[in-house]
Amino acid sequence: MNILVINPNISLSVTELIHNEARRAALPDTRITMATAPFGVAYIETPGEAAVGAYATLQLLAQQQADHDVAVIAAFGDPGVAAAKELLDIPVVGLTESAVAAAFLLGGRFAIVGISQRIGAWYVQTVEQLGLSSRMTGYRGLKQGFASVGTVQHEAREVLREMCLSCVEQDGADSIILAGAPLAGLAREIADDVPVPLIDGVGSAIRMAEALGRAGYTPRRSGAMSPPPMKAHQGLQDGLASLIGRQP
Amino acid sequence: MNILVINPNISLSVTELIHNEARRAALPDTRITMATAPFGVAYIETPGEAAVGAYATLQLLAQQQADHDVAVIAAFGDPGVAAAKELLDIPVVGLTESAVAAAFLLGGRFAIVGISQRIGAWYVQTVEQLGLSSRMTGYRGLKQGFASVGTVQHEAREVLREMCLSCVEQDGADSIILAGAPLAGLAREIADDVPVPLIDGVGSAIRMAEALGRAGYTPRRSGAMSPPPMKAHQGLQDGLASLIGRQP
Amino acid sequence: MNILVINPNISLSVTELIHNEARRAALPDTRITMATAPFGVAYIETPGEAAVGAYATLQLLAQQQADHDVAVIAAFGDPGVAAAKELLDIPVVGLTESAVAAAFLLGGRFAIVGISQRIGAWYVQTVEQLGLSSRMTGYRGLKQGFASVGTVQHEAREVLREMCLSCVEQDGADSIILAGAPLAGLAREIADDVPVPLIDGVGSAIRMAEALGRAGYTPRRSGAMSPPPMKAHQGLQDGLASLIGRQP
Amino acid sequence: MNILVINPNISLSVTELIHNEARRAALPDTRITMATAPFGVAYIETPGEAAVGAYATLQLLAQQQADHDVAVIAAFGDPGVAAAKELLDIPVVGLTESAVAAAFLLGGRFAIVGISQRIGAWYVQTVEQLGLSSRMTGYRGLKQGFASVGTVQHEAREVLREMCLSCVEQDGADSIILAGAPLAGLAREIADDVPVPLIDGVGSAIRMAEALGRAGYTPRRSGAMSPPPMKAHQGLQDGLASLIGRQP
Amino acid sequence: MNILVINPNISLSVTELIHNEARRAALPDTRITMATAPFGVAYIETPGEAAVGAYATLQLLAQQQADHDVAVIAAFGDPGVAAAKELLDIPVVGLTESAVAAAFLLGGRFAIVGISQRIGAWYVQTVEQLGLSSRMTGYRGLKQGFASVGTVQHEAREVLREMCLSCVEQDGADSIILAGAPLAGLAREIADDVPVPLIDGVGSAIRMAEALGRAGYTPRRSGAMSPPPMKAHQGLQDGLASLIGRQP
Amino acid sequence: MNILVINPNISLSVTELIHNEARRAALPDTRITMATAPFGVAYIETPGEAAVGAYATLQLLAQQQADHDVAVIAAFGDPGVAAAKELLDIPVVGLTESAVAAAFLLGGRFAIVGISQRIGAWYVQTVEQLGLSSRMTGYRGLKQGFASVGTVQHEAREVLREMCLSCVEQDGADSIILAGAPLAGLAREIADDVPVPLIDGVGSAIRMAEALGRAGYTPRRSGAMSPPPMKAHQGLQDGLASLIGRQP
Repeated sequence: MNILVINPNISLSVTELIHNEARRAALPDTRITMATAPFGVAYIETPGEAAVGAYATLQLLAQQQADHDVAVIAAFGDPGVAAAKELLDIPVVGLTESAVAAAFLLGGRFAIVGISQRIGAWYVQTVEQLGLSSRMTGYRGLKQGFASVGTVQHEAREVLREMCLSCVEQDGADSIILAGAPLAGLAREIADDVPVPLIDGVGSAIRMAEALGRAGYTPRRSGAMSPPPMKAHQGLQDGLASLIGRQP
Repeated sequence: MNILVINPNISLSVTELIHNEARRAALPDTRITMATAPFGVAYIETPGEAAVGAYATLQLLAQQQADHDVAVIAAFGDPGVAAAKELLDIPVVGLTESAVAAAFLLGGRFAIVGISQRIGAWYVQTVEQLGLSSRMTGYRGLKQGFASVGTVQHEAREVLREMCLSCVEQDGADSIILAGAPLAGLAREIADDVPVPLIDGVGSAIRMAEALGRAGYTPRRSGAMSPPPMKAHQGLQDGLASLIGRQP
Repeated sequence: MNILVINPNISLSVTELIHNEARRAALPDTRITMATAPFGVAYIETPGEAAVGAYATLQLLAQQQADHDVAVIAAFGDPGVAAAKELLDIPVVGLTESAVAAAFLLGGRFAIVGISQRIGAWYVQTVEQLGLSSRMTGYRGLKQGFASVGTVQHEAREVLREMCLSCVEQDGADSIILAGAPLAGLAREIADDVPVPLIDGVGSAIRMAEALGRAGYTPRRSGAMSPPPMKAHQGLQDGLASLIGRQP
Repeated sequence: MNILVINPNISLSVTELIHNEARRAALPDTRITMATAPFGVAYIETPGEAAVGAYATLQLLAQQQADHDVAVIAAFGDPGVAAAKELLDIPVVGLTESAVAAAFLLGGRFAIVGISQRIGAWYVQTVEQLGLSSRMTGYRGLKQGFASVGTVQHEAREVLREMCLSCVEQDGADSIILAGAPLAGLAREIADDVPVPLIDGVGSAIRMAEALGRAGYTPRRSGAMSPPPMKAHQGLQDGLASLIGRQP
Repeated sequence: MNILVINPNISLSVTELIHNEARRAALPDTRITMATAPFGVAYIETPGEAAVGAYATLQLLAQQQADHDVAVIAAFGDPGVAAAKELLDIPVVGLTESAVAAAFLLGGRFAIVGISQRIGAWYVQTVEQLGLSSRMTGYRGLKQGFASVGTVQHEAREVLREMCLSCVEQDGADSIILAGAPLAGLAREIADDVPVPLIDGVGSAIRMAEALGRAGYTPRRSGAMSPPPMKAHQGLQDGLASLIGRQP
Repeated sequence: MNILVINPNISLSVTELIHNEARRAALPDTRITMATAPFGVAYIETPGEAAVGAYATLQLLAQQQADHDVAVIAAFGDPGVAAAKELLDIPVVGLTESAVAAAFLLGGRFAIVGISQRIGAWYVQTVEQLGLSSRMTGYRGLKQGFASVGTVQHEAREVLREMCLSCVEQDGADSIILAGAPLAGLAREIADDVPVPLIDGVGSAIRMAEALGRAGYTPRRSGAMSPPPMKAHQGLQDGLASLIGRQP
């Protein structure tokens, strides 16, 4: 199985973190192709930045989707994921929805832990739009700054671990999602210190992508998530133009 | 008051429809500036197309917002509206949220009538994300095709009028939103034939923009909708770059 | 445009506060007529008191609505507003729903700040019944008593300002509604001290009333919010009797 | 036990229907006192009419509550019930909430059947405000007119019976509430023709009133439903004045 | 009226507590039959334990229901209640739903107080499944252990009383449910110390059972809660087999 | 990976259907162990029957879980799944939650198609309890009877296919879950005839079980879904007793 993994942020250090964790999570015969957004920000924290990341992501998907079985959009908050599900014939999954699906199957209610205070509102909103707020206990995020998004999980490891414990003890979380590509891999490292399952976004996305890919679902040919109807357009990159303008 | 009105679609004929209705709705001393998306589709019907329209809209806003007091994003479905509220210091309103606010104040429950079947799912989702689904009776859209998005309101006037009556008689609507810039102005023309208030998206947006502009709200300086924190970025147009990268 | 503004409370000092802020908010050619409840309480704090205020309000509206284009019911909690929307042919708006509509258009989530602890439960309930609880962060009210409802905003200004800051910092509010006619005008005075928009109930109601009045909506002639069907009645004041018993 | 039963409508024929069914439902040692609204309409169909009925009800309760253990407000839609719960020291129940509590305990989802189309919107809203919409399948109401509200249950018996069957077969109702005092007693008469339990509003209210009365709950002395704080008032009837102005 | 009361736990001391409170709450001519689960745990705290208790309860009901008019399943959390409503022709009520129905009729929002921290999640879930979470302020449970489930209400009386006060003062509860058969009777003892009504689960269940029993509802003969369709089965106790396999 | 698959029904023909589809869906190195309920019904259609199936399932799991990495409870409606998640240290998934998780990741809204009218209410309730009703368009079930639960998918294949088309065309489904072990494998056979993805419950459960198993989550050691606290019990099978009574 060939999985195309998009980093909607411009950070190559994060692309590498994602790649490492993706490889670790994937089945032996899965092939991972990484792509990094050519424009945008170092790490998306808000809906405004996500709108930029979504467009970069759609362009990358349009250019590189050929010969892939599934695509993963590897930023928590799932920028462009809903749009990509509609535009592409292959399944597309985001980090948030994949981690949330894992938490949903583990049962009970989940918390989300992330790298900044500001980013929490966007994550909460993403879960609301997925329709699963009733199963979320809340968000906890780092209050401190950090030197680099590529190393934040090491810099703040102890604080992140303590936030996980607060999610269990104070908020009643039955599982915890470590949110965002910059935290990829941390779950494995601190799992023994936290008394509920820790869920890694990248790992979940790869395993869920494989699950969907192996199921062999047929593409949608009608309805609200089938390819958009043909219509006049202008100024789009070739790849995106052919997705927008194609016959369903 | 200076209002910047963005058409997130590439259709100049629709820009003209919007402009006419905006002028008719505006206070005498309001100045309207129109801008049309340089890339994208003729009329946005789906979340995939909206992701494209959102990016075009943010670029236009970044380039042209100077010297305006309020901005209106004039496509139903509100592409880019949430992002723009965060990125800009002036109030930004969308057609859907403005029409929905009018329906909310008129009281009871509202229906939405629009120009295609496909577009309905997106509108329903937009109202869900605004948090007001509990006050919506449903969506009804044209089943037939049409020659031009600039003339659809004339081509299908009789069918649209009948759909309005069905919204009242079968769905229990207490008011009806005629959705989408292509229907701008139709509300005035068929109001006498329908026994509940008809709400025009463009007119509502202009009046709500004026109401917000006159209130003189201070821009947000902290919280989840304040300007995003400074961070590294690349490949953005100058205007957008200065919005993304500025100090809150 | 002629706007009839009802104070559902018996306090003439509050009527004056409302009038001042209404005049300040209104367009130059808007005429404001004030009316004060002849019976009831000094300021409505509970659903029980609101039931009394609603009846006084309906009587006043029935007597004085002639020659007005819109009516404003100027007590937070919107006593009698839903009933008045149904009974009158002109649009009627309340303070809560107008302020909430402004917050809705500013985006994100809003807090409400008011003059007593007790009154909060009623405000929360009002927002629930409007269907927008999902966009409210919570209520904060004065714990201390006050000498007079006409001067409470001056007596407690510093505490009110601090409660606003708590709404932002602790509750995550993206805007704040200063609730109740007794706080009319305070928003302008402390706006610079609070990093999110402050929304004045009276000012919002006047601007929203003008927006609805200018739109020229036709009265409802059928459906759940049209005038009630003719039926036997007794013991009603002439004005109210003619509203209850008229032919839709 | 002494139960005060208020008919918020002016119809003496309905007061008699209520009294008969109340007597039939009550325990042998329960004493029923009936009171009929001195002003208002023949039967409340809308929120506007309910605002009038609520005020008449509060006045009657204030005048006549002495020496009663519980009060029943005997109009579906529960006009004034929430206000009365707060103002009185004895438990107060409405027809809607009592019938809904019975349906809730029988399990599954309930339908409501009533005497007019128009009245349905108000009933639906009442159930929403009680917080139990998720357990309601819908409302079905008579489309035809009727000669008298005192005899409508006989005039339209066959149609009402068929509407009950539709509630089961088409809507999936697990029980059916026959709504409104004018249908008091009908449930007993057609129970054998309908394959799910039929719930009578008046009978439910009497039995629930007895259940609350026998439990001997202490009155609320603090919180959002305790008696309102003392404050200035004017123009209220003596009874109501003493409820509004008393010390909690 | 004959009421069959099932204790789904194996604790005979709790059966006695239930019996005492049931007798105290019942009408003079009500006959109470007690039955105790022959297998299971001392007191159910979790959904896992409830699944065991539900099966024991269904077996007891099947064996002993004959000649009873109503059944009460006397463990908070209502194990087996939904299943029993479907399988039996007589009304069946649980402690949670009965106490919640009383709180619902008293008005406003209720808190639940119980004997352990762990048990709270299950109670919260039970109220969610009943559809009334919007009227619950929260759960507070004992943090300390206790010597015996039959005496916990005496051992921890002071702490339970203080938790009740916190429910009012900090959480805004308008009434409080003392949850679980082990607390049966405590409400009467501490009612004077708490400024809102205290609701006893066992007492509520008996009174609600009597209210349903006296109404004489006909059993369901179709729909989602009627007896299950005939089908092949094996290995069931005789009583249960005849309930599962009978003709609706 | 070793997966224990429980059929909570007594039907060996259905166990075989499940086994076949499970083998087809599993990774090459996954080992599947089947177990069939020793008591209960031929196929669970209602919450009452599910309570029986849940107990049989818990007993089987307790007896046979040793040496397995994950367990699948292979009846739609997920009898005993929530209880088993709490009692066992290995992940446990149900057919409904697994199929719903797949639909959730495919995006948009899903329909459920099943083998009887009656069974629909239970499935709808299951999705409600999972918290994902907002993403379900509805249930459609066979109206006709069938000769055998082991062959119903062949007997009624054409009707089932048409119901799928109605889910898309009339209800707006973006994907369809073919519900129930008796329909295992049908999705593959009719996928080409339906223009949206068809989701098989058994296949989804196996793939999701593998995804959870490969993630290597640590068991819960505290919180609402950790093993129940030690307490007195009696009359339980050895396996179940050791789960109920163990130290967390």
